[in-house]
Amino acid sequence: AFARSSKLSKQKSPCKTFTLYLHDTLFNVTNAANATSTAITNATGISNFQFGTLIVFDDPLTLDQHILSSPVARAQGFFFYDMKTRYMLDYQGTLNLMGADLMDQKTRDISVVGGTGDFFMTRGIATLRTDTTQGFAYFRLKLNIKLYECYY
Amino acid sequence: AFARSSKLSKQKSPCKTFTLYLHDTLFNVTNAANATSTAITNATGISNFQFGTLIVFDDPLTLDQHILSSPVARAQGFFFYDMKTRYMLDYQGTLNLMGADLMDQKTRDISVVGGTGDFFMTRGIATLRTDTTQGFAYFRLKLNIKLYECYY
Amino acid sequence: AFARSSKLSKQKSPCKTFTLYLHDTLFNVTNAANATSTAITNATGISNFQFGTLIVFDDPLTLDQHILSSPVARAQGFFFYDMKTRYMLDYQGTLNLMGADLMDQKTRDISVVGGTGDFFMTRGIATLRTDTTQGFAYFRLKLNIKLYECYY
Repeated sequence: AFARSSKLSKQKSPCKTFTLYLHDTLFNVTNAANATSTAITNATGISNFQFGTLIVFDDPLTLDQHILSSPVARAQGFFFYDMKTRYMLDYQGTLNLMGADLMDQKTRDISVVGGTGDFFMTRGIATLRTDTTQGFAYFRLKLNIKLYECYY
Repeated sequence: AFARSSKLSKQKSPCKTFTLYLHDTLFNVTNAANATSTAITNATGISNFQFGTLIVFDDPLTLDQHILSSPVARAQGFFFYDMKTRYMLDYQGTLNLMGADLMDQKTRDISVVGGTGDFFMTRGIATLRTDTTQGFAYFRLKLNIKLYECYY
Repeated sequence: AFARSSKLSKQKSPCKTFTLYLHDTLFNVTNAANATSTAITNATGISNFQFGTLIVFDDPLTLDQHILSSPVARAQGFFFYDMKTRYMLDYQGTLNLMGADLMDQKTRDISVVGGTGDFFMTRGIATLRTDTTQGFAYFRLKLNIKLYECYY
């Protein structure tokens, strides 16, 4: 029978692939006409890595490296600095989570919508439970992660 | 023939599962060295639920409940308070939407990238149409949601 | 053999479909009780299109067009203005990317979690490489996009 969670072969190749160059010019007070990105919040000062800065961008995408080439698409969105310090963790992969944390429920599910590395292309559900909470100072969540689509 | 939208069995089990504990220590002005999360916008004052507060975090993930255990991963990202008040709605599930609302087009599609509950693991497209607009005061969108991958 | 990247038929129909109306009432200083959305950052002034404004919303969803109908669900989340100006690009589709840009790695992968138009329902991986960087003024990324699930 058809099972979405079968382990698929590691050798599978993409159905579509292409390369684009993204050009990002950060707003520096004097370049409003040319800037393609700008910070909308300030860094928080609790780290040296701009922790908390949120950047909105509308960057041209070109087929070659030249910034003046005609854009074939736009990259529009935001990124932000969420690394407080450097870590010694080995990179093995990332999981991308997204969802609504309905705090009035004892457990609540959010979605795992993608992954990289060991978690290449995965999908699943993360069940969150508040394990303990100390006022606004500290909370601990128990995350139970269940992947239902695995490539590896 | 192979159909992605077949109803899959409810009994299917995960291909991978694991449990992690997330430790979040909120910045409170005096704990910059230990804090792992911080608000980067202020609550808006239109609700009692911190509506509008955006929190960036870089939280350690451990295999057990102890905050001093060696982290095996980091949870990096943001969350924000988007509940204005409490509702009487029964929880049946959530849909996770993401996309570009290209407002100069009459209808535009955004992606449904996941779901929980009745919408477990779903994917699809939401077609948005601006139904009416009253200056900056009010707008109404018509959402036509089409799910192409359903587990239930 | 089962291949996730097979081209699926264009004629496939949704497994579930429904229509909802979203009502958004923007906070205008005097309507705190009724407002369902509010800006949490200011526009940045580098464009005429509110570039950089981040709006948090908690909007009722109804089955018909009447704002006073009983809500059957809530749309909770945020949107922001990320279009700096108008473009002449033909719309052919969008890709939705999400992930962690681990800048200390030479190349890093982020997830393509969905798409619209020519990229209907696609999934894949975008490999990012910093191609050049000029202080904080400019950077260029090389994006290699590999789609492993294609409907078209």
